[in-house]
Amino acid sequence: MAGKLKRSPLAPRGFPKLPSIPGVRLGGAACGIRYRGRNDLMLATLAPGSAVAGVFTRSSLASAPVEWCRKRIGGGRARAIVVNAGNANVHTGRAGEKAVARTAGVLARLLDCPEKEIFVASTGVIGEPLAVERIETALPALAGKLKSCRWREAADAILTTDTYPKGACAVARIGGTPVTIGGFAKGSGMIAPDMATMLAFLFTDAKIPPAVLKKLLAEASERSFNSITVDSDTSTSDSVFLCATGKGKAHKAVRSAADPLLRGFRKALQAVTIDLAQQIVRDGEGASKFLTITVTGAASEKAARRIGLAIANSPLVKTAIAGEDPNWGRVVMAVGKSDERVAPKKLAIRIGGLPVAKGGERVPGYKEAPVARHMKGSAIDLAVDVGVGRGKATVWTCDLTHGYIDINADYRS
Amino acid sequence: MAGKLKRSPLAPRGFPKLPSIPGVRLGGAACGIRYRGRNDLMLATLAPGSAVAGVFTRSSLASAPVEWCRKRIGGGRARAIVVNAGNANVHTGRAGEKAVARTAGVLARLLDCPEKEIFVASTGVIGEPLAVERIETALPALAGKLKSCRWREAADAILTTDTYPKGACAVARIGGTPVTIGGFAKGSGMIAPDMATMLAFLFTDAKIPPAVLKKLLAEASERSFNSITVDSDTSTSDSVFLCATGKGKAHKAVRSAADPLLRGFRKALQAVTIDLAQQIVRDGEGASKFLTITVTGAASEKAARRIGLAIANSPLVKTAIAGEDPNWGRVVMAVGKSDERVAPKKLAIRIGGLPVAKGGERVPGYKEAPVARHMKGSAIDLAVDVGVGRGKATVWTCDLTHGYIDINADYRS
Repeated sequence: MAGKLKRSPLAPRGFPKLPSIPGVRLGGAACGIRYRGRNDLMLATLAPGSAVAGVFTRSSLASAPVEWCRKRIGGGRARAIVVNAGNANVHTGRAGEKAVARTAGVLARLLDCPEKEIFVASTGVIGEPLAVERIETALPALAGKLKSCRWREAADAILTTDTYPKGACAVARIGGTPVTIGGFAKGSGMIAPDMATMLAFLFTDAKIPPAVLKKLLAEASERSFNSITVDSDTSTSDSVFLCATGKGKAHKAVRSAADPLLRGFRKALQAVTIDLAQQIVRDGEGASKFLTITVTGAASEKAARRIGLAIANSPLVKTAIAGEDPNWGRVVMAVGKSDERVAPKKLAIRIGGLPVAKGGERVPGYKEAPVARHMKGSAIDLAVDVGVGRGKATVWTCDLTHGYIDINADYRS
Repeated sequence: MAGKLKRSPLAPRGFPKLPSIPGVRLGGAACGIRYRGRNDLMLATLAPGSAVAGVFTRSSLASAPVEWCRKRIGGGRARAIVVNAGNANVHTGRAGEKAVARTAGVLARLLDCPEKEIFVASTGVIGEPLAVERIETALPALAGKLKSCRWREAADAILTTDTYPKGACAVARIGGTPVTIGGFAKGSGMIAPDMATMLAFLFTDAKIPPAVLKKLLAEASERSFNSITVDSDTSTSDSVFLCATGKGKAHKAVRSAADPLLRGFRKALQAVTIDLAQQIVRDGEGASKFLTITVTGAASEKAARRIGLAIANSPLVKTAIAGEDPNWGRVVMAVGKSDERVAPKKLAIRIGGLPVAKGGERVPGYKEAPVARHMKGSAIDLAVDVGVGRGKATVWTCDLTHGYIDINADYRS
C-alpha cells in the first residue's frame, strides 16, 4: 500500500507542477474503503458539454465500473469521473453493479446531469463486496471542495501499491492558440499484490469532438499504456480517460482526427501518455532497472510491439537485467517465442548501442566487458532488428527482482 | 548446473528402475563441452528399421539441431539420437549447422546408416560456438560401450540446471502381447539460467509404423509436455522423440492410430509422458509447491488448456501460491486475460476442493481459513469452471519464489 513501500529507486524527483485546466476541478477525500489515514476517493468534475473518450481493459472478466463505462463511453459526454482505491469491485455480482449505479446516481443528482455522463473506476482487492455507502456519504462534501489546482491531491487518492503519485502535462497549439493537456495515473504491477490495475486520467481545455478524441486516445494509448508491462498480468480494471472541456481560449474548429491542425496536440498527448506510462514502469513492483526495448525490421508496427512485449514479459530476460548479466541468448529465445515473423539469419541485437549479434550469430570478436558495463546502469537499452520489414516500436519494462517476490508473495495484510 | 543446485524439495524419491527395451542401447560420456567432472554427452542407438516421431519447439529461432531434425523426422526412421549438454547450438550461424552435420556424419559412419537416420539435440548456453570436435572425438568410444540398461547414465548426461534425472516407464498390451515404454527427460525452466530447454526421449519395443507413432506422440505431448509451464518462456530447443524398435515380442499388426488395439499403449504412453512432464515441473527453478490446475466448462479442450496456462503463467498467481495466500482474485484476473470465451456470471473456483467463488461472485459465507490451510501443503489443487461448454484440461506448474530469482539473476559462471 502507498506509503508502506519504499519509494522506487527509479522514481522521478517529484510530482510535476501542473497548471489549472479551465473546466476541470478535482480533489480527494478519505472514505475508509480499506486504508486508514489517507485519501482513497478521487473526484474530477467537468464543465457541461465536455467531451470524453476511454480505453478499457481487454479482460473478459472486467470490473463492474469498466462494464458501466464501456456501455456509456459511446455517448461521448462526461460531467464527472469518480475513483475509489482499495476495492476493485470485480467479481462482486449484482451487488457490484448496483454499487456503481448508486455512485453514479449520487453524483448525477449533485451535478444535475444524466447518469450516463458519470464515469467510475475502482482499484484494489478483487472479489470483496464494496462498501458503497461510504462513497455515497463522502461524495457531497468532496464535490463541494474541488479546485482546479488539486492535481496532487487527486493523484494521491487513487494509489494502491504505488510508491509515488504520477503526473504529467504539456502545452500544444491548435492553429496558433495554446491548449493544455494534463493528467495523472496509477499502477505498479499490471495487478498489484491484491490491489489492481493501471488507471490514467487525462484532461485538456481544447475543444475536440468525442469521435476525434476517441481516435486520438486510441492512437496515443497504443504507443504508451499498451507499450509497457511490469509482469504480463492484465488487470480486470485498466481504464484510461481523456476529457476535453473546450473551456480554454477559443481555437479553430477541429473536425477530424486527420486534421493537420491537430499535429501539435497529437504530439503533446503522446508525450504526456508516454511520460505517465514510463512513470508506471518506474514504479514497477520491485523494479531496480528501467529497460527500453526498441524493435525494428518487423512486418508491421503491431508485430514490432508484440516482439517487444515478448522480450519485456520474459521472466528470463527480466532476471538477466536484474542480475546485470549480458545474457543475450535469452533475448533470442524471447524473440523466437513471439509468434511474429523474423528472419533468423538477419537478426541483430544491440545492448546499450553495442552490437552483440548480427546476421544470425554473435558478432565476430564479441567482447562482453563493455556490454556488462552498460548493464550496471539503471537505464538499460536493448535494440533488436528482426530483418523482415519496416515495422518498428518501442516498449518499456522493468527488471524482475527479489522485491517483486517480496511484495507479491506476502499475505494480504 | 546439475549437482551445484540443491535437490528440489518436490523431487521424487529416486530414479525409477527402468527395464531394458530390446533394440535400444544407451549411455553417457564426458566430452568437456562446458562441465567438468560429469558426463555431458548422451547416445542412444536403435536397431535397424526402428520408427521415430518427434515434436519440436514452435520457436521461430530454433536451434541448429532442431532444424536438422525437423527436416529429417518425416523419414520416420532412426538409428541414433545424440545429445550434448552445456551448449544449445542456437544462433550460431553456418558453423552451428556444420556442427550438427559433422556429428551426424560421424555417427552414420559408425553405425553404417544414412545420415538422415541420426537425430541430434543440444541444450545449454545460446549463441556460443559449439566445440563439435570434442563430440566427434568422444563418440566412437561411447558408441562402443552402450548397454540396454544404462537409463540412469543416459538421463544424467543430458542435465543442465536440473537437480535430479527424470525417468519413467510403463507396460501395455497390444492384442494381449506385453510391450514396454520407457524414457527420460530434462528441464527445470522452459529455459534455465543460460542453459536451456525441455528434452524428452521415449522408447518402446512395440512395432508401430512412423505415421501412427507421429499421431500418438502428438496426442500424448499435448496433454503432458504442452500442458506444463515453469516460467512461460519457450526454449529454442525443446524436442521430444518417440522411437519404436519393433524388437519386443511379436504382436498383432497395428495399422492406424485409431486402431482399438492401441488403447492400452496410448494410455501407457500418456502415463509415461505425464509422469516425465510432472517431474520437470517438480524440478522447476526455485519451486516449493506443485500446482495442478483443472479447467472445465470451456469451449473446447484447447480453450481449457489455454485458460489453464494463462493461470499457470501468471506471476501473480505463482507468487500467491508461494506466499500461501488464497488470493483467488488473481485467478479471476488470469482467466480474464486468457482471450478465451468465459461466462462471467457462471465462473466457479475451487481451491483444494473448497468452493471459493460461484455464479460470478464469492460464495456466500466464504471462510478463508480452510482454504489457507490447503495452501500450506506442497501440492495445491485449483479448479476453475468457466461455464460455457464441455471442454476440459489439466495443466501443471510450480510457484514463483526467491529461488527462481536467485538462480536466474545470477551471473553466468
